[in-house]
Amino acid sequence: MVTRGILIGRFQPPHKGHIEVSKQILREVDELIVGVGSAQESHTLENPFTAGERILMISKGLAEAGIDLSRVHIIPIPDVKNHAIWVSHVVSLSPPFSAVYSGNPLVKRLFKEAGFKVKAPPMFKRKEYWGAEIRDRMIKGKNWEQLVPKTVLEVMKEIKAAERLKDLSKTDYLLS
Amino acid sequence: MVTRGILIGRFQPPHKGHIEVSKQILREVDELIVGVGSAQESHTLENPFTAGERILMISKGLAEAGIDLSRVHIIPIPDVKNHAIWVSHVVSLSPPFSAVYSGNPLVKRLFKEAGFKVKAPPMFKRKEYWGAEIRDRMIKGKNWEQLVPKTVLEVMKEIKAAERLKDLSKTDYLLS
Amino acid sequence: MVTRGILIGRFQPPHKGHIEVSKQILREVDELIVGVGSAQESHTLENPFTAGERILMISKGLAEAGIDLSRVHIIPIPDVKNHAIWVSHVVSLSPPFSAVYSGNPLVKRLFKEAGFKVKAPPMFKRKEYWGAEIRDRMIKGKNWEQLVPKTVLEVMKEIKAAERLKDLSKTDYLLS
Amino acid sequence: MVTRGILIGRFQPPHKGHIEVSKQILREVDELIVGVGSAQESHTLENPFTAGERILMISKGLAEAGIDLSRVHIIPIPDVKNHAIWVSHVVSLSPPFSAVYSGNPLVKRLFKEAGFKVKAPPMFKRKEYWGAEIRDRMIKGKNWEQLVPKTVLEVMKEIKAAERLKDLSKTDYLLS
Amino acid sequence: MVTRGILIGRFQPPHKGHIEVSKQILREVDELIVGVGSAQESHTLENPFTAGERILMISKGLAEAGIDLSRVHIIPIPDVKNHAIWVSHVVSLSPPFSAVYSGNPLVKRLFKEAGFKVKAPPMFKRKEYWGAEIRDRMIKGKNWEQLVPKTVLEVMKEIKAAERLKDLSKTDYLLS
Amino acid sequence: MVTRGILIGRFQPPHKGHIEVSKQILREVDELIVGVGSAQESHTLENPFTAGERILMISKGLAEAGIDLSRVHIIPIPDVKNHAIWVSHVVSLSPPFSAVYSGNPLVKRLFKEAGFKVKAPPMFKRKEYWGAEIRDRMIKGKNWEQLVPKTVLEVMKEIKAAERLKDLSKTDYLLS
Repeated sequence: MVTRGILIGRFQPPHKGHIEVSKQILREVDELIVGVGSAQESHTLENPFTAGERILMISKGLAEAGIDLSRVHIIPIPDVKNHAIWVSHVVSLSPPFSAVYSGNPLVKRLFKEAGFKVKAPPMFKRKEYWGAEIRDRMIKGKNWEQLVPKTVLEVMKEIKAAERLKDLSKTDYLLS
Repeated sequence: MVTRGILIGRFQPPHKGHIEVSKQILREVDELIVGVGSAQESHTLENPFTAGERILMISKGLAEAGIDLSRVHIIPIPDVKNHAIWVSHVVSLSPPFSAVYSGNPLVKRLFKEAGFKVKAPPMFKRKEYWGAEIRDRMIKGKNWEQLVPKTVLEVMKEIKAAERLKDLSKTDYLLS
Repeated sequence: MVTRGILIGRFQPPHKGHIEVSKQILREVDELIVGVGSAQESHTLENPFTAGERILMISKGLAEAGIDLSRVHIIPIPDVKNHAIWVSHVVSLSPPFSAVYSGNPLVKRLFKEAGFKVKAPPMFKRKEYWGAEIRDRMIKGKNWEQLVPKTVLEVMKEIKAAERLKDLSKTDYLLS
Repeated sequence: MVTRGILIGRFQPPHKGHIEVSKQILREVDELIVGVGSAQESHTLENPFTAGERILMISKGLAEAGIDLSRVHIIPIPDVKNHAIWVSHVVSLSPPFSAVYSGNPLVKRLFKEAGFKVKAPPMFKRKEYWGAEIRDRMIKGKNWEQLVPKTVLEVMKEIKAAERLKDLSKTDYLLS
Repeated sequence: MVTRGILIGRFQPPHKGHIEVSKQILREVDELIVGVGSAQESHTLENPFTAGERILMISKGLAEAGIDLSRVHIIPIPDVKNHAIWVSHVVSLSPPFSAVYSGNPLVKRLFKEAGFKVKAPPMFKRKEYWGAEIRDRMIKGKNWEQLVPKTVLEVMKEIKAAERLKDLSKTDYLLS
Repeated sequence: MVTRGILIGRFQPPHKGHIEVSKQILREVDELIVGVGSAQESHTLENPFTAGERILMISKGLAEAGIDLSRVHIIPIPDVKNHAIWVSHVVSLSPPFSAVYSGNPLVKRLFKEAGFKVKAPPMFKRKEYWGAEIRDRMIKGKNWEQLVPKTVLEVMKEIKAAERLKDLSKTDYLLS
């Protein structure tokens, strides 16, 4: 019987912490499902990258770390307005899984109420592995490049990720 | 001719103030419609309870106060994106009504523009009967239990309401 | 422990068959939940009546049959695009229930897959108690009035139900 | 006081009948609102053209007929799932109007129930001025060009309207 | 070949700055498209006016300034959840255009990524021509009337715009 | 430079024809994207299986055929109401691609209008490789098992696929 664990995050952007967690999960289960949350969001300060961009970056980052992609499913998960149906929504989009990994209190609570076993990935106390910290550094022109895998960085350069974030952070002085 | 009044709130959670207002309205009209606003919301700090949980709590709280439930309709009302159609939306979901009771400025304004008579329920200046105050006390572990009817409290204990709110209030330190 | 059963239909319109089934269910459980399906629909040949109109008619029809309304919850249930989340959606809108009553194959299948006990109400082979048959007779000006409870008929006359259906059945000869 | 009438259709495509009706309405009111219904639809056999394409064609067709465009508002109206709120929806999208012109039974019924005066445009019994007839001729390669204004025809040629319809009418023999 | 430029804003409310920009654009292109953004929004502090009200005000304001309305298309543009599809959405709702005018960083970024030429309208550094400033003055009862065209002011008085904003700005002391 | 082709279908269910086409595409491009259309649909006669079930079946079927899954991305694509934005929607959900493979006339037309190169997969004239044919045989209890890969058949047995389809095909004799 194949065992599967799902790691749910927004991956804005995927960083080395995500890769590390993925490796750990793959020691515990046969297959890893990466649930790309808020999949419908992009081009905002909180969610700068499209689902497609994130899927590409995640698969490259995992491959770079030597993870066998045939053991991984990457699934975009759009938000639903009604949190009470969110677990069903994830279940309907994904191959079946028995373990849930997330650091998000809402995600954890919803799966817990639905009777799932939820595990908080054991690390990332270090602020560098917060997506918010990385996005903030990108806007301010601070050092962030070493926080993401090399192949992820390549994609981000190709899509001019930092320029996008800086553009989006400008004040709208006008027409409203 | 049956007269009906609609009381619109979010009931997160229903409290003694809501029950008091309901009694008053039932002195003025034959039937009370309880419009459960933001019905699609749940599991957030602002809207922790599902529509179903709120409907159950409201019906129990009203019965506990000796209100004849055959004079009451409880109607979940999901939000609509476009406020300009919200009154039509409520009208389409509810038995016909002639009076509207709400303390919410937007609700009052929209019904006023649509030509309805809107009444602000005459009490609740007292902060204890704000839903926000109750939710805040639940998170902080302060005294809140006496602010809701006994039967409502029972439901809240059964669904571990305080635990849910505390869980949701935790910081998301991680994966994004 | 209160037991509850949910009867799910579209009630376009509520008819004597629905009332009969409701009575039967209330012999088996403490409280009846009437789930008014496709609640967002109205003014079509399949779904001529708004949720509000249906709720009013159902509550009157049940009261006319001597059913104690304090044992009944009437809940409008809007459709969701994704059937796989529909059971969660119903559960989130309704007080908790342990038995499901429906004649609709999709409803039955979805609840069955979710692990619920589903019962097909035991009657209604008789075509007169099909909503479709009643609507068809209304359009064609045939005899239908005796198929619905007297109080339901009153509401239908007040809202000019037959005229609405006839209007909607006219051919659109023009502007498109 | 400016008087306004709204003509509601889908304009798939706009044809000489629509222009004729527009002229008549502008004899009765100061300003004409053209409500482009099912605005979100395009690239189907029923609704081949986008809202933007239809707006462009309508404005050209009206100008060609010598109608002063400063007396006309063209407003795209996306469908709403809930018919009971549709009139509010139209009202919220449009400058205020006092008369409604439509041949569609649902549109007429909804505005009538909302207390509006609805007029059926007095012509178009002739099948050539049905959008469905024109679309059918386009697919079958029959004569249709003389049924639309010359400037509309120009736009349709530019966007290869007939090719689009023929493509969409092909059978999907495969992947599902 | 007709050239068209689109000016995208929310027009909450339209003000003299908008009119000025419109004039400038009409010196550069044959036809002006006014894209009324967040069209589905109304009755909030950020977006107090419906799309219909804004369309009426814009057309009056432009006419008052002597602009030939037959050179103008006013198109309501509802928001879409997914920014990555927003440019397609605008394109599908509007007659074709070659130049985009907006001061909004997101709008500019999205059109830039889609390969459009985006121009920032050259003025409006002056705070008086910010919609937010005007709405703020309306709430506080400060001087704002001279910032909008006379005909726009007339509409705003007719719909009691200031009263609406003041009502919406009241605190919701109660039912939640 | 990595080249990618996208194969768009509904995969209700995935069959040997899909696998064959996938192999062919992987001879022409470096990576294959499998776009699982109408991802939000399930439990209907047209779309019996959830996106999650289809993703699982597709990945197993491809692996069974010896295809290296690290060269494949499987992306669920929910429908959008507005066809005119559908291509943008697909692009935003998927890693970048240069070739599109589909037999669906709408899909082909939309990508063609957006400037993409669209290829019709060269086979499948044989009716056995139509999803509709397979679903029809499942309902009628005819021979269908040999039309899908062995591993797909296993999943279908596990989720009782034939029973689901038969259940859904029953007549709704009752409550409406």
